Amino acid sequence: MTESFSAARSRGAEVERAVESDPAAFRVLTGDRPTGKLHIGHYFGSLQNRVRLQRLGVELFVLVADYQVLTDRDVTEAVDANVEALLLDYLAVGIDPGEAVLFAHSAIPALNQLLLPFLSLVTVAELRRNPTVKEEITASRQSSVSGLMFTYPVHQAADILFCHANLVPVGKDQLPHLELTRLVARRFNERYGTLFAEPDALLSKAPSLLGTDGQKMSKSRNNAIPISATADETAALIRGAKTDSERDIHYDPGSRPEVSSLLLLAALCQDREPEAVASDIGGGGAGALKAVVTESVNEYFRPIRQARAGFAADPAQVRDILRRGNNRATEVAESTLADVRELMGMNY
Amino acid sequence: MTESFSAARSRGAEVERAVESDPAAFRVLTGDRPTGKLHIGHYFGSLQNRVRLQRLGVELFVLVADYQVLTDRDVTEAVDANVEALLLDYLAVGIDPGEAVLFAHSAIPALNQLLLPFLSLVTVAELRRNPTVKEEITASRQSSVSGLMFTYPVHQAADILFCHANLVPVGKDQLPHLELTRLVARRFNERYGTLFAEPDALLSKAPSLLGTDGQKMSKSRNNAIPISATADETAALIRGAKTDSERDIHYDPGSRPEVSSLLLLAALCQDREPEAVASDIGGGGAGALKAVVTESVNEYFRPIRQARAGFAADPAQVRDILRRGNNRATEVAESTLADVRELMGMNY
Repeated sequence: MTESFSAARSRGAEVERAVESDPAAFRVLTGDRPTGKLHIGHYFGSLQNRVRLQRLGVELFVLVADYQVLTDRDVTEAVDANVEALLLDYLAVGIDPGEAVLFAHSAIPALNQLLLPFLSLVTVAELRRNPTVKEEITASRQSSVSGLMFTYPVHQAADILFCHANLVPVGKDQLPHLELTRLVARRFNERYGTLFAEPDALLSKAPSLLGTDGQKMSKSRNNAIPISATADETAALIRGAKTDSERDIHYDPGSRPEVSSLLLLAALCQDREPEAVASDIGGGGAGALKAVVTESVNEYFRPIRQARAGFAADPAQVRDILRRGNNRATEVAESTLADVRELMGMNY
Repeated sequence: MTESFSAARSRGAEVERAVESDPAAFRVLTGDRPTGKLHIGHYFGSLQNRVRLQRLGVELFVLVADYQVLTDRDVTEAVDANVEALLLDYLAVGIDPGEAVLFAHSAIPALNQLLLPFLSLVTVAELRRNPTVKEEITASRQSSVSGLMFTYPVHQAADILFCHANLVPVGKDQLPHLELTRLVARRFNERYGTLFAEPDALLSKAPSLLGTDGQKMSKSRNNAIPISATADETAALIRGAKTDSERDIHYDPGSRPEVSSLLLLAALCQDREPEAVASDIGGGGAGALKAVVTESVNEYFRPIRQARAGFAADPAQVRDILRRGNNRATEVAESTLADVRELMGMNY
């Protein structure tokens, strides 16, 4: 089921060229689980690219995956506030709700219904083999796996296929999910008639940033710099970041991962190469490095944070953006579901 | 997870008394998969009881479980015609669409959406333990089990809980499903706040009839007498039924199962005891027995078959009945889904 990473990457270059030459031919499905504020790792790893695609002229469907909150926890605590925070992050970084469709899973019954016919197209053995599910089961340290966790790659196929998205930005670890979506599309077409295009992966090129503890930056590890942090909070977080005791600052991800990740972060904010940032700092040590990184991050995110504060001051507008997105997604989902029912002969 | 059969049976007697003393306090969820015409085994095993409950004043929600057709086959061949045949059978036996809500799964997205939160309430281990799923996996002789088959007891919980049914007529083999529904209701209430009553089982008292080959009567075994058969077709089917060579006709299910099943069928049609039917026939042998059974079945089902022909002559009316039922079920499902989203904090 899993296609090889290198095959996806080489097709990825082609896909990228196709997007640049005819962006209007592409519809992207992307989104996040509303489990807390997004951080600068999300920004450089994914959000920045979404905004780039939108500005090119690609249509974005941006999913607030609220049911998927339950894949690795029992209850939906604070989901309401988390949905609002996620929307504020999206709007702040420049996703334009006049162009993109921002919507929440739980508000689109016709999308969710697609889970049923799609579940008939995959076997339990195929679900059990999904490496991401396996991994997330381990990572979530749950004593037992819920039915929702087990079936969520099929739900994700519904997310992608309901809006006929043909391009899905993914990290390497999500390729098996996209392969399942392609399998669902193929089997549906074979059994009932051609309806779904098999979507392509757009592999993330962004290097992953480390958190302040030197581990992968992650909401759940409490080692992240939120996009919405203040300048002072950002300074404090970077001040506490793990580095090493060598005074000479060099970019060397292999042997000095923490220092190199900080250099990379400053470089991304300055739109320069990390080596160039390092040579500016020279023998200044971790203190000088952290001062540069703090300044770069705060400079880069200042307009984004200002925009976020503006949206946060008008929650009614944010709710209205979601409502309009939900309505648009519902229209699209109802149309796709009608086609699915027609092809399945359930036309009564 | 499975409650004992005898516990359910003893509670069943209490439930039956409660229904008779206050029928308006009960809402029943029942239904069938649209996989072909219903037969006289369905009639005496289930349909007759549904009509009895409705006449007592119990509200019926009758589900045409069209997605569940896919649990044991790959495609939905002829589902359209099968849905119509099922509706004709329901209407012919006396289910009153002015009182009952007749609806199809695939037309109620808000019901189907409940599958998602409900899947979060059960573990894969619990799904794997379900004996009915295990059995149906064996019976369907599928080389591999689909995700839909694996999760269908959870979908059934959505069928029952979406309309707050508090009574579910079941055979003994379906008790584990109802226990899963009770578990889903309980866990939802514990995690998010009380919304669902745990439904009770109404255990079928009807003896099961054998098919013409002496095996259990079943649509898929091609050994059944359809409710909608003509008098001549019925005669031919009963003429070909397996019996034994003993001329004296006695009711003795243990040692003469085929003869006894035919006696039971005649007795059900005549509303008498099978022993009384047997003593009328005495030494007449299988030929006399079959003549009595044919006459009894044709006599009993004549008005039902006439009613069926009447509805069959007006397919637009039948479609309209389904449409009205779908609309009513949608209202109910949307209201329940709104309550579910509210309690889960997904109120945006």
